[in-house]
Amino acid sequence: MRMGRIEAPEADELVRFAGAMADAAGALARRYFRSDIAVETKADASPVTIADREIERTLRDMIAARFPDHGIFGEEHGAASLDRDFVWVIDPIDGTKSFIAGMPLFGTLIALLRDGQPVLGVVDHPALGERWVGAAGQATLRHGTPCRTRDCRALSDAILFATSPDLFTGADLDAFERVSRRARMRRFGGDCYAYALLASGFVDAVVETGLQPYDYLALVPVIEGAGGVITDWRGQRLGLASDGRVVAAATPALHEAITAMLA
Amino acid sequence: MRMGRIEAPEADELVRFAGAMADAAGALARRYFRSDIAVETKADASPVTIADREIERTLRDMIAARFPDHGIFGEEHGAASLDRDFVWVIDPIDGTKSFIAGMPLFGTLIALLRDGQPVLGVVDHPALGERWVGAAGQATLRHGTPCRTRDCRALSDAILFATSPDLFTGADLDAFERVSRRARMRRFGGDCYAYALLASGFVDAVVETGLQPYDYLALVPVIEGAGGVITDWRGQRLGLASDGRVVAAATPALHEAITAMLA
Repeated sequence: MRMGRIEAPEADELVRFAGAMADAAGALARRYFRSDIAVETKADASPVTIADREIERTLRDMIAARFPDHGIFGEEHGAASLDRDFVWVIDPIDGTKSFIAGMPLFGTLIALLRDGQPVLGVVDHPALGERWVGAAGQATLRHGTPCRTRDCRALSDAILFATSPDLFTGADLDAFERVSRRARMRRFGGDCYAYALLASGFVDAVVETGLQPYDYLALVPVIEGAGGVITDWRGQRLGLASDGRVVAAATPALHEAITAMLA
Repeated sequence: MRMGRIEAPEADELVRFAGAMADAAGALARRYFRSDIAVETKADASPVTIADREIERTLRDMIAARFPDHGIFGEEHGAASLDRDFVWVIDPIDGTKSFIAGMPLFGTLIALLRDGQPVLGVVDHPALGERWVGAAGQATLRHGTPCRTRDCRALSDAILFATSPDLFTGADLDAFERVSRRARMRRFGGDCYAYALLASGFVDAVVETGLQPYDYLALVPVIEGAGGVITDWRGQRLGLASDGRVVAAATPALHEAITAMLA
């Protein structure tokens, strides 16, 4: 197995370690989910809880202990050593709004970048007991079984998701409306779960904006390893410096149709 | 225990029977969920699958065998004997769009009307393993444990849900925007699950329109038995002849604040 420039067994070790991180995160998330915890509001007006902070702290400690020379970028505790060959990018709870509303769709996102490229991604849903693992050059696994996107090539056949219409404003809203109104079905809600369902062939497209690197980098190996395509709205590969506009599609043909309409 | 004019042990027997119906529905729903089944489009443009039809057929057979003198109104197979004292109102899969997108939030809704009043409601989520049971005059139970709405009285403190902004058009959309923009948080997605989360104190309000009796009647005993309020937008009690506009709130004060703004 190859993972960018990583060779097995190093790649296998990294996948196992990422799984152990997701296990630790899930145990904490389940402990706090639907419990009576305070919700604070961050500078960007998004909510945060002790669960977000404690999960990220735990994952950072695990990385520091096992791979002290790796960089880390997390939603709650910021960036450290982004100049390293390997950088972990973490969203302890993607979908904090779902989390605080008792909705079990929230997930933990764990990405590993190698020279800036996402080569490993874990999408874990602790309250649902579902996990997807993607590694560059390998088939994406859901609970250890390979999964595939659906062979959906036309927008008029596609089930399209976005977490909320409230993500979009101005020209982005116009572009989203233009695309989503032509889908067979458009639905809201889901956070990272919609992308995971895309990797498993139930959802065909996700179009969003305003995302941060920790929201999308873990999705890249998961979607690509399942046969899908995920880029920014201009069709550019996603990285730490992307503009937060993300489009994921089940097939290259559907991706091309959507990016052409978003342009 | 009293249930409208029903006396125990008859009420207990009806609750147990409704639970057995939900068990049967759940087994079928789990068998078809995420399997390769055809999706047809009904006259009202909504989707339907063999799962919807087979579940409702099973529940109707159960009712006919046990209570042959009861009426039945189901989403897929229509109304029979609505003039009877007892009428069951069934949505085999509330959230068929979620169901076909692989989203586990869909549910089975079972209501029992006594002289037109909803006196028993079951909200069951087979893919999540969660069930709420409400019976007139009793505390609503989630997995056999009483649940309560949250003591949220101001819209500015409320988490508000609707399944989709696409439910609303024209003046209804204006009214929904007026209310939902003043909530602490507005979220989309959830189907009947948002109402169940309201009964458990995680969500504070749900505002929707275009619903059918089988979409809302089972919610009435569940919400009321948890301390919440659920009516049409004018504050009128919900029945078979309501206009499909539904507002549910965690407290009477919040309900009054929302209905005043919807008017």
